Amino acid sequence: MKIDDLPIRDELRGQSPYGAPQLDVPVQLNTNENPYQLPDELVARIAERVAEAARDLNRYPDRDAVQLRTELAAYLNRTNGLNGTAGTELDVRQVWAANGSNEIIQQLLQTFGGPGRSALGFEPSYQMHELISRGTGTRWIAGPRNADFTIDEAAAAAALAEHRPDVLFICSPNNPTGTAVAAETVLRLYDAAQAVKPTMVVVDEAYVEFSHQPSLLPLLAGRPLLVITRTMSKAFGAAGLRLGYLAADPAVVDAVQLVRLPYHLSSVTQATALACLEHTDTLLGYVRRLKEGRDEVVARLAALGLEVTASDANFIQFGVFQDPQAVWRALLDQGVLVRNNGVPGRLRVTAGTPEENEAFLAAVATVIKELSPV
Amino acid sequence: MKIDDLPIRDELRGQSPYGAPQLDVPVQLNTNENPYQLPDELVARIAERVAEAARDLNRYPDRDAVQLRTELAAYLNRTNGLNGTAGTELDVRQVWAANGSNEIIQQLLQTFGGPGRSALGFEPSYQMHELISRGTGTRWIAGPRNADFTIDEAAAAAALAEHRPDVLFICSPNNPTGTAVAAETVLRLYDAAQAVKPTMVVVDEAYVEFSHQPSLLPLLAGRPLLVITRTMSKAFGAAGLRLGYLAADPAVVDAVQLVRLPYHLSSVTQATALACLEHTDTLLGYVRRLKEGRDEVVARLAALGLEVTASDANFIQFGVFQDPQAVWRALLDQGVLVRNNGVPGRLRVTAGTPEENEAFLAAVATVIKELSPV
Repeated sequence: MKIDDLPIRDELRGQSPYGAPQLDVPVQLNTNENPYQLPDELVARIAERVAEAARDLNRYPDRDAVQLRTELAAYLNRTNGLNGTAGTELDVRQVWAANGSNEIIQQLLQTFGGPGRSALGFEPSYQMHELISRGTGTRWIAGPRNADFTIDEAAAAAALAEHRPDVLFICSPNNPTGTAVAAETVLRLYDAAQAVKPTMVVVDEAYVEFSHQPSLLPLLAGRPLLVITRTMSKAFGAAGLRLGYLAADPAVVDAVQLVRLPYHLSSVTQATALACLEHTDTLLGYVRRLKEGRDEVVARLAALGLEVTASDANFIQFGVFQDPQAVWRALLDQGVLVRNNGVPGRLRVTAGTPEENEAFLAAVATVIKELSPV
Repeated sequence: MKIDDLPIRDELRGQSPYGAPQLDVPVQLNTNENPYQLPDELVARIAERVAEAARDLNRYPDRDAVQLRTELAAYLNRTNGLNGTAGTELDVRQVWAANGSNEIIQQLLQTFGGPGRSALGFEPSYQMHELISRGTGTRWIAGPRNADFTIDEAAAAAALAEHRPDVLFICSPNNPTGTAVAAETVLRLYDAAQAVKPTMVVVDEAYVEFSHQPSLLPLLAGRPLLVITRTMSKAFGAAGLRLGYLAADPAVVDAVQLVRLPYHLSSVTQATALACLEHTDTLLGYVRRLKEGRDEVVARLAALGLEVTASDANFIQFGVFQDPQAVWRALLDQGVLVRNNGVPGRLRVTAGTPEENEAFLAAVATVIKELSPV
């Protein structure tokens, strides 16, 4: 019996599961993970908080994750000014959490998208926006970008007017290209969308802690159809935790509760996330180190004669290659795993430890001697 | 701003989030939780395994949860004979895990249901079958039951022929009524469904460890469209863990991977579940105690002159009351929280510790003196 012998939905036929190859190589820079292991004190604190939670594991978790949402709001308020923004005063009613920002996006699409509705995003971008749209029966509309991967505002306004999407995705910093979107652009897109019809505007800030630009959280005030999604996978070095969250008007948080699976967030997930939130200062120290390393890799890739897309994330898009897959393969042969996201001529590399970055740069220098760029 | 001011889907307007009231009363017998806290050795083992996993929390979890699925398969093979069934020899390719059996059901409906498709279940049953169907755009068809809450096979066959559903849910033991479905009935329903068209038949065995009847796992052999769902919430006393799983043909496991969110199951969830699976014997000891208590409560409720639905679960449906909500309220006034699932004339009580069962029976005796049954 094969998948296609089963009565699966027609649109799933011939598809493959989403996911980067999980290969065991010395330098893994393909999935934008944080290279720093959790510090010992935090590991011990997680064990402590999970043990407390485990004693009552026979009971369902707090369905509304009130303590966790309260601490996430406090984190956002505390760190939002980091890059020079005005602070926010978000409270628990404005924050919602789920198993990864993927589940957050799924809940948003179940609430505001779904059959008979559509979502628009500017490609290339985080591929799960499209895949989760399709998974929830939401029609996907691929919007355009400029040649430098920034958003073409005039073309975007035209696409909004033509397609009248129910949900607009803006990924900032954008994955896989790396550049943050200017606040003014987001504001103009929000207004352009609302001018057509009431539209949920979802700004995916999964990588914002790595940005040269401040978070867009202050834009939430007075914009009830704006949603900002976040994750603990990257800045918190907790990809294994699967904790995504959103900040928005309290009505949006109320609305997603109509579609969330009851008790979706386990007691151990809540306990682990709370432990991580106690160690924010240490974890953001790693973020600062990664940003410095990232900026250095950008400069050195450019010095090698490569074209590098401006990066506000913990990864860097570089090229231009006639055959990116051949370069991907050649780097892998050197023990360095990067990602081919299918962006023409480009590859993406995650910012790693100083040692990983050096290994990557050495591999690139070797490889481009053999496979010269366009 | 209120929910209805947002551009939510029309079918969500006016709805409330699913979930029993979470009230703080002395005796909580409303959500079918296992009353036994995890034993100290298991709590310590969870802390140990989670600490191991937490060190690498910066990395994504095993996307395919191979070790966990292997151990779940071993558990099923080991315990399946408990009630006298032939053993099974399931392997990792036949088992899939997710955040609660709710997420398992959601993945099944995203794969085999969805827009333009339908699912049929026999009501009253586990309400999430209907709610997740609706949440995935699957049309819901309410099938009939006999007056004693067993499945009316002739009416079921007629409903299958008339509605031609894509997915058929059979809950055994059935929640909230409590009775297991005979293997012969499941076989006839499977055949009746396939005679109409290829139909996924999902048997929800969330409570099967508490049943007087064996699991239906042996029926999987040679029936590629049969799926059996399970959970660690009840028998494992791990409602707070949110770990649901399914056993089926390997092709079904491959198929749900087309819709699962990547890395849906966190490292801490996988580590905690693996620790629980090391302590199966202790946990199944609690199950035996709960079954004995359940059988005693059934007998004593009947001795009080109440009508009790045959129970194969860790809960009991009882009545018949002219005004079940008044009885629910009167029991709550006595400090005992049970569940009103909306089944006419009936309430549902979870099997608790011996002390909780006594408190419940004393409260019932008091209440029925005041509010006499029909």
